[in-house]
Amino acid sequence: MNIQHKRSSLVPETVTCGPLPGSRKVYHHPQSHPELSVPFREIALDPASGEPPVRVYDASGPYSEENFKPDLAKGLPRTRAVWLEKRAGHESYAGRAVKPEDNGSVSADRLVPPCPANAAPLRGRTGALVTQYEFAKAGIITEEMIYAAARENLGREQAVEGAAARLKDGESFGASIPEFVTPEFVRDEIARGRAIIPANINHPELEPMVIGRNFLVKVNANIGNSAVTSSVAEEVEKLVWAIRWGADTVMDLSTGRNIHNIRDWIMRNAPVPIGTVPIYQALEKVDGDPIKLTWEIFRDTLIEQAEQGVDYFTIHAGVRLAHVPLTAKRTTGIVSRGGSIMARWCLAHHKESFLYEHFDEICDIMRAYDVSFSLGDGLRPGSIADANDAAQFAELETLGELTKIAWAKGCQVMIEGPGHVPIHKIKINMEKQLKECDEAPFYTLGPLTTDIAPGYDHITSGIGAAMIGWFGCAMLCYVTPKEHLGLPDRDDVKVGVITYRIAAHAGDLAKGHPAAQIRDDAVSRARFDFRWQDQFNLGLDPETAAHFHDETLPKDAHKVA
Amino acid sequence: MNIQHKRSSLVPETVTCGPLPGSRKVYHHPQSHPELSVPFREIALDPASGEPPVRVYDASGPYSEENFKPDLAKGLPRTRAVWLEKRAGHESYAGRAVKPEDNGSVSADRLVPPCPANAAPLRGRTGALVTQYEFAKAGIITEEMIYAAARENLGREQAVEGAAARLKDGESFGASIPEFVTPEFVRDEIARGRAIIPANINHPELEPMVIGRNFLVKVNANIGNSAVTSSVAEEVEKLVWAIRWGADTVMDLSTGRNIHNIRDWIMRNAPVPIGTVPIYQALEKVDGDPIKLTWEIFRDTLIEQAEQGVDYFTIHAGVRLAHVPLTAKRTTGIVSRGGSIMARWCLAHHKESFLYEHFDEICDIMRAYDVSFSLGDGLRPGSIADANDAAQFAELETLGELTKIAWAKGCQVMIEGPGHVPIHKIKINMEKQLKECDEAPFYTLGPLTTDIAPGYDHITSGIGAAMIGWFGCAMLCYVTPKEHLGLPDRDDVKVGVITYRIAAHAGDLAKGHPAAQIRDDAVSRARFDFRWQDQFNLGLDPETAAHFHDETLPKDAHKVA
Repeated sequence: MNIQHKRSSLVPETVTCGPLPGSRKVYHHPQSHPELSVPFREIALDPASGEPPVRVYDASGPYSEENFKPDLAKGLPRTRAVWLEKRAGHESYAGRAVKPEDNGSVSADRLVPPCPANAAPLRGRTGALVTQYEFAKAGIITEEMIYAAARENLGREQAVEGAAARLKDGESFGASIPEFVTPEFVRDEIARGRAIIPANINHPELEPMVIGRNFLVKVNANIGNSAVTSSVAEEVEKLVWAIRWGADTVMDLSTGRNIHNIRDWIMRNAPVPIGTVPIYQALEKVDGDPIKLTWEIFRDTLIEQAEQGVDYFTIHAGVRLAHVPLTAKRTTGIVSRGGSIMARWCLAHHKESFLYEHFDEICDIMRAYDVSFSLGDGLRPGSIADANDAAQFAELETLGELTKIAWAKGCQVMIEGPGHVPIHKIKINMEKQLKECDEAPFYTLGPLTTDIAPGYDHITSGIGAAMIGWFGCAMLCYVTPKEHLGLPDRDDVKVGVITYRIAAHAGDLAKGHPAAQIRDDAVSRARFDFRWQDQFNLGLDPETAAHFHDETLPKDAHKVA
Repeated sequence: MNIQHKRSSLVPETVTCGPLPGSRKVYHHPQSHPELSVPFREIALDPASGEPPVRVYDASGPYSEENFKPDLAKGLPRTRAVWLEKRAGHESYAGRAVKPEDNGSVSADRLVPPCPANAAPLRGRTGALVTQYEFAKAGIITEEMIYAAARENLGREQAVEGAAARLKDGESFGASIPEFVTPEFVRDEIARGRAIIPANINHPELEPMVIGRNFLVKVNANIGNSAVTSSVAEEVEKLVWAIRWGADTVMDLSTGRNIHNIRDWIMRNAPVPIGTVPIYQALEKVDGDPIKLTWEIFRDTLIEQAEQGVDYFTIHAGVRLAHVPLTAKRTTGIVSRGGSIMARWCLAHHKESFLYEHFDEICDIMRAYDVSFSLGDGLRPGSIADANDAAQFAELETLGELTKIAWAKGCQVMIEGPGHVPIHKIKINMEKQLKECDEAPFYTLGPLTTDIAPGYDHITSGIGAAMIGWFGCAMLCYVTPKEHLGLPDRDDVKVGVITYRIAAHAGDLAKGHPAAQIRDDAVSRARFDFRWQDQFNLGLDPETAAHFHDETLPKDAHKVA
């Protein structure tokens, strides 16, 4: 590591590394593609149990290897670069020059330096195959698809025993989960628009993963920069910490100073897809005044972030001028930040949203880098009172229209969803999204199932997340205990991610995912046999489980009873 | 307070009192029965909001009054005594003499003294009206029914505006929730067997409440004595703390020394129904060896606890000899403590369960004191792998058979349920319970929806609890973060209760309970108006919400923005 900027003895100069207790990192090489190294975590069990290690999905990147020494300035290994080099559709170019406003016009003495690992960006050529969607439609299986398929199977070369029975025992509401995920299945799902592999061609450090209703339910965690950045490592650590506990993707919602350069450091050190909301940065460039936003500034911001390697963008193009009045009688108006920015702009100018008007051009830019769409739900309900109202559903219908445009342009698309929804109104959200958006992956915030528990909204929303994951939602955006109250700290992020891993897994179990129950069964056997250490290590949070146990029964003897 | 026994400066000598922030205790006097004082909590809002206080259900007893001074030796006011005295069906008698084994044969120097508030017990006469079920069947509305009805309506004298629309907007799976709960409706539900008011005639301190599918979903918290009791106040505090955060009933699962006398102190200071599992104490009396259990010892224990005023007993009479082999191939065998005790007894003696064989006599005893049945699910699944299996459902069918016997004997009945169940198998539990047990109230532990998160089982189970509450479960038994790992401390109990209040409320909202959303809406308006203090105070845990907010935005100015 080689960070000389603004050192502080109080601030970590590195990031959290090393395996979880009882675990080791393993890399699987698919028989058909032995050159690929697909990461998993293996949890070793008490030899006396006679049970083999349990292999689990692992999005934590090389950080959880036994002896990984991160060098943030160098960035993670650029594994995907080899795959990308073989493809003819890209060209390298000088890239857009970084402007002072990209970093919030921070003064020179406070400027976080750019990440030395930055390379000249790639850009897709018109007419060539660039996006995973385009490859899939052309019948071509990419390395990303092979890699993601292997992850879904936990490195198995064939279906688990009893897969058909598991699927039959589940209830997936019309999903088409296979007994075994082949690369061809991944390709087919992407071509059908039912799945995406968010994978910007400028993110060679990525360990590809697939998001779709017929795959394991995924979890996103949000991070944001601190008001005053003490070190780059502190910012990268937020990412590393979130993926350590199981976040599959991370959204960087930073605002203010240094966001461009911090994003560089995050991208170069991110093994997971990174999402952003470009309108946030665009707004910074016009001094926080939504009315001053222009298509040109927004367009420039898209290119800026696409060149950095951001894998998916939230684009609030569904907030149309005509939808805004539908929110007038709401209890909580418009609570999405992007939604309120765009509503403000539309009303002030009394014009149709420039995102909607320029949607074709947005598609062209995002296609050129294979940035996936995350079509934002700017009119999502902010309270139980506003759930499933006319504004929300009008926007969802527009998102369905935009989905088809984006597909026609060769882009990958997922759709964002609510928000606050009582549990009996969750299923209709899922059903309407599938219908309107022709089964494009759904990506929801919670939903929170009641408003009465500030401080516990990871739980109010974890209930809704488990249910919508079961109903067919492809990715769940986490909510932390600090939701509505303040900025999450390290503990909040961990609790949020673990709560959402519970929700995602509960959904997978219920859908009858062929291998989901293997881990539950291993925990249950360990529990029944009083193999305490195995029970802790097999759980989502071995440290907390062991600590809770030791609080009341601190003797080692009790752990091996 | 007048406790001289085993003082310790480290141990509280009193219990937690006083209102929650922003709240005050109010007592409602129903127009038709102004002599009744029905407790609620009123949350005052910022005067600038122009909104009236929000009234919420309150099970916390007099402890949350502004100036309540608990006197544990004297016990709570015996409000019900006046009602009971008017009834002809009871007789007072000397009561069973306390035996050394009732307190675990504790040595004299360690004996917790009996509670001075104890009075001679009442016993119902054969042929007279004693239980709430008998009164209900006879068409008589008791004070308990009037009181419970007023609680369900939050002290309103008529239905809330829009009640019909709320009900229509909900989904209650065939429940019959009324727009307004009248005492006659409570009576009718009890007569129908669809609801119970657990109310031992020896528990005059009780603030009656109703448990049933057509009422608000209730929450139970479990407590247990410490291995070494430091003070009586410490044990009573566990009850007071659990109801402070919203537990509607409390099960005392104590074992070991002093349990009889501690139970005295708990009963005399409990405004909520107290449940127990009598087989636990019976087992203590035979030195922990299930094989030595006899009907006579169990019978004597029932009378002992019934005289003390315990409101409901878990009776594992559904664990029949023939069911035990059905668990042989399970992943986690029999995990219910009561279930494993009875299975062990049945197998050792190769005899039918004495609980099943003597069920008529059990009914006669419980009827005489109006102790409600909580028919235990001794074969509940202890893992996802064992959910909904033959053993579980065979027992449930037996519980259905026993329900009808208990009703015929004049007893109130609810049914206990699982346990560990993946989310797609929860609904079938509810449906089968309604069918087999003819709609007797269901009372479930969770269910936990995955086994992979030791340390977070309040969340794995909160998901299942919300869902089964929606489907029709009447009461949810909480699970704390320490489940499977150790004994819950004060913080764990609070988190467990709040998680389950979330689950219960999410269920109420989804069922379309006419008034449930009033509190959500008040929070949402406070949130939208940046009335921070109102948002905190309206939440389930004002202190945590305020603390979380202040961590990142500590200035008062931010709270009134």
